[in-house]
Amino acid sequence: MTDAGPKLTDGRTRIDFQTDPSRYRHWKLELDGAVATLLMDVDEKGALFEGYELKLNSYDLGVDIELADAIERLRFEHPQVRALVLRSGKPRVFCAGANIRMLAGAAHAHKVNFCKFTNETRNGIEDASAAARLKTICAINGTAAGGGYELALAADHIILVDDASSTVSLPELPLLAVLPGTGGLTRLTDKRKVRRDLADFFCTTEEGIKGKRALEWRLVDEIAPPSKFDATVAARARALAASAPPPTQEPSMQEPSMQEPSMQEPSMQEKGIALTPLVRKRSADGVEYGCVSVELARGGRLATIVLRGPAAPPPRSAGAMLEQGADFWPLRLARELDDAVLDIRMNELDVATIVFKSVGDPRAVLDCDRFIDKQGAFWLAREIRNLWKRVLKRIDLTARSLVTLVEPGSCFAGTLAELVFAADRSYMLIGRRDGDNRPPPIIILGEANLSGRLPMSNGLSRLATRFLGEPDQLAAAGGVVGQELDAEAAERLGLVTFARDDIDWDDEVRLFLEERASFSADALTGLEANLRFAGPETMESKIFARLSAWQNWIFQRPNAVGPEGALRRYGTGQKPVFDTKRV
Amino acid sequence: MTDAGPKLTDGRTRIDFQTDPSRYRHWKLELDGAVATLLMDVDEKGALFEGYELKLNSYDLGVDIELADAIERLRFEHPQVRALVLRSGKPRVFCAGANIRMLAGAAHAHKVNFCKFTNETRNGIEDASAAARLKTICAINGTAAGGGYELALAADHIILVDDASSTVSLPELPLLAVLPGTGGLTRLTDKRKVRRDLADFFCTTEEGIKGKRALEWRLVDEIAPPSKFDATVAARARALAASAPPPTQEPSMQEPSMQEPSMQEPSMQEKGIALTPLVRKRSADGVEYGCVSVELARGGRLATIVLRGPAAPPPRSAGAMLEQGADFWPLRLARELDDAVLDIRMNELDVATIVFKSVGDPRAVLDCDRFIDKQGAFWLAREIRNLWKRVLKRIDLTARSLVTLVEPGSCFAGTLAELVFAADRSYMLIGRRDGDNRPPPIIILGEANLSGRLPMSNGLSRLATRFLGEPDQLAAAGGVVGQELDAEAAERLGLVTFARDDIDWDDEVRLFLEERASFSADALTGLEANLRFAGPETMESKIFARLSAWQNWIFQRPNAVGPEGALRRYGTGQKPVFDTKRV
Repeated sequence: MTDAGPKLTDGRTRIDFQTDPSRYRHWKLELDGAVATLLMDVDEKGALFEGYELKLNSYDLGVDIELADAIERLRFEHPQVRALVLRSGKPRVFCAGANIRMLAGAAHAHKVNFCKFTNETRNGIEDASAAARLKTICAINGTAAGGGYELALAADHIILVDDASSTVSLPELPLLAVLPGTGGLTRLTDKRKVRRDLADFFCTTEEGIKGKRALEWRLVDEIAPPSKFDATVAARARALAASAPPPTQEPSMQEPSMQEPSMQEPSMQEKGIALTPLVRKRSADGVEYGCVSVELARGGRLATIVLRGPAAPPPRSAGAMLEQGADFWPLRLARELDDAVLDIRMNELDVATIVFKSVGDPRAVLDCDRFIDKQGAFWLAREIRNLWKRVLKRIDLTARSLVTLVEPGSCFAGTLAELVFAADRSYMLIGRRDGDNRPPPIIILGEANLSGRLPMSNGLSRLATRFLGEPDQLAAAGGVVGQELDAEAAERLGLVTFARDDIDWDDEVRLFLEERASFSADALTGLEANLRFAGPETMESKIFARLSAWQNWIFQRPNAVGPEGALRRYGTGQKPVFDTKRV
Repeated sequence: MTDAGPKLTDGRTRIDFQTDPSRYRHWKLELDGAVATLLMDVDEKGALFEGYELKLNSYDLGVDIELADAIERLRFEHPQVRALVLRSGKPRVFCAGANIRMLAGAAHAHKVNFCKFTNETRNGIEDASAAARLKTICAINGTAAGGGYELALAADHIILVDDASSTVSLPELPLLAVLPGTGGLTRLTDKRKVRRDLADFFCTTEEGIKGKRALEWRLVDEIAPPSKFDATVAARARALAASAPPPTQEPSMQEPSMQEPSMQEPSMQEKGIALTPLVRKRSADGVEYGCVSVELARGGRLATIVLRGPAAPPPRSAGAMLEQGADFWPLRLARELDDAVLDIRMNELDVATIVFKSVGDPRAVLDCDRFIDKQGAFWLAREIRNLWKRVLKRIDLTARSLVTLVEPGSCFAGTLAELVFAADRSYMLIGRRDGDNRPPPIIILGEANLSGRLPMSNGLSRLATRFLGEPDQLAAAGGVVGQELDAEAAERLGLVTFARDDIDWDDEVRLFLEERASFSADALTGLEANLRFAGPETMESKIFARLSAWQNWIFQRPNAVGPEGALRRYGTGQKPVFDTKRV
């Protein structure tokens, strides 16, 4: 295994996270009123990298990019869908999990980033259930092994065909000497609450568990004989869809007094928007989107992401927002920012630090936040806010140093101010710059920062996490919502790390960025993964901490990845040779 | 770095965890009424392994074994001590942290086990504060770097001398490309609740932070100029000692109606017991203690630990328990079991599985539990229970597969039944064995299993963790306390994994043990570290999961441990060469 890893197929030079159903090679989305079916039918020849075929519905990152896209589109393009059925388009196999030859050949960094993205996708399925009331049923009509069963674990309801052969299994350990690292172990114990000793048996039993025992051990929710399988799945999907509240009436979000009359019309409740292709212009040194610019300074191992504030006031009504669709500024910005971060994560491994900057009117950002809050009961407003939640969580989990620079002309207010709090460090300019007649920068806090609607994976808002030890500071932040805070006020309130004037700014920021680039990349990854997540852990955060960190360790160990290790020897007919020492 | 690691010094062939103050080379314990001082004065020539000297109060495992011993002895031998002062016996340096050359030369397994033990020792200091009201003050009279500051973080109160030069620092990342992995990162954010961006600055600043800023950032609790340092420390220690309740009157444990009149006498409240040397006879294939036998079957990669139940009924009174001292069965057994587990962890790396068995009368075990519960307000009873808590936590964290075999003649009741629930799997014999006229085995639950007094590091009891998804099962377990449960009843109640009769037993157990030995040692470590800890996380569990797992990953990465890595190049005058890819 060279760390460079194998070549991408089809002459690609980068991994692209943008796709749409017309380009899917591995999934088919079928819509039937409130029920959608996502059919997994992986194209063996559609691998992302050279050197392997995607047999038996095994997957690589390319397959998962399509899945993630489909889930997003369901939420925005088909809000009428209340139940999603995940099933296989192939006979006798649901999904064989992550492709083993892909894993065996992949560079360490790709393995880690692949697992992180697939975890985010599965969390996204659960988020759709919790936040958008889009329930998922996994219909296992054959073998669900490893990552295949882990995909099922992300669903609300798992139905397994009860024939003589179909099993669910997590054979990673006995077969490959790695973990079920796409949430499998954590979801077994923390979501399905399978008893630990039964989980131990299950995870060390290559052939898996079928039928009644799988049900008794709570590995699945329901079993059905082959003759009744399709009817059971269909009935369950219809029932789930019928029990879910319509898009505008989620109880937790209901704010009837703020609804506009026009929103009560069924056509508007149900009408989705098109997630139109992102406009991107890539150059050698960056990418230009509509509201986002990425500037790569590869010599300095830096990527600067500049976010542009809204160019227009918010729409006048929910209907007008629907009209704007994917062009509505907060939605467009979130999608572009997400793409930019994923692109850096996966394609720019040498970037040590991401610098966030912004340009625009902070009051205009707050106006947009307020508009979305006011329309909070309308599905599109809620989905936009939830997309921001997911994008910000993705940033929290990005293994790059993050720094936010608050300079004149910036618009870090409300939702965008979260990038100040997501950063490992922030610097804010005191006063103006010599020769720059823009006013000194300000930060304005909004409800977005304090309402808890943009939680981190630990379940707390970034400000609550930041001020765990200083509840007075959190209260003080709550007391200045809507106020224009200059650098000194922001520093005093603990909202930025350092306020610096024009004399010190350039040197201090430059030294920080140089220092960051000089440190060990791995040590920074470990440091940031610890310091960013103070306080409680949730199932989601446990997946990225307890499970992923151990998996990443195992992905370095010769027993898995060495020349005689299980991942490399799989399918060769040769048994792996293990170092027997327990560590 | 060979994985075999360097040789032990002084002709030792094993690492021994038993010591006593007369043999300490690195610490001096000074007693003054309710205040004790533990003076760190590391003997440079007293390293555990060849190839390095312990300069500047740096430490290796040998230094930490003495510290752990001293803390245990304070609790048992000197219960009158209410405040412990940790300070350095050397001028201008408190402690330079873990010895870098030791780390650079150590085998991976040793690094991991070293960190685990030092973490357990620091948790022990915090446990003494929480459970025994023995408060610790760390008096930093010079530089506290890396593991030196991490040791301070375990204290209740940190006083830093405010001179021109003394700093606290966590220079691991900039200096060595590893993490402050002895709890440092987690205690910064979760115990001291240092703001994450300030923590980021602190952990990337090699020279550390001194005086007023250290206080403002909450890195220390108090600063004192050199001229007033000793007086400040002494006054703070006296005040803490005076504010702590006397040993028998911990509010949370007070059960006055159960106290015997004799316990009110000050002499008995204050009189400690001697932790006499463990009686151990080592042979080529095991160790024989008083109440514990360890049988090593190295060919099968097995260690069998047999626990022997009490040979006599519990003492008649608290006074009689005090008389028995270290010979009192539960105390003796806990100390022997702890030593046996540590010995296997550190010296028998090839052991894949630890098998727990027991021999004795389960009712006699429960009698002892009840006696201790009845005397729960007496310091010695409380300390014994707390020692069991720590020993069982150590077992939970032991990176070996754990299996408990419940066979005829066994005594898994009450506290000892925790070993059934701590195991990754358990097997219980149905009925008798052919040719064995002992009655079928039974399990008896006691208050120890349900009271929450023996929590895991996640804060829950083992049964509560086991039945997270089945509250009815937890309630059912509560309903059978004191009842004799045969194998079928225990299986039905979910207390054992498998009940098997004599016909299946031998084959099934043998196959399980062979299978376990055939799996990748590393993958098992990761699997067990996940499945054992369902449910919530605490600061303690985060240290072993989030922090340690990342540190173990970094301990595999060339940036730290490769020939050009920072750990290997430290002190050579050559700069490390890093792979710059972020993963």
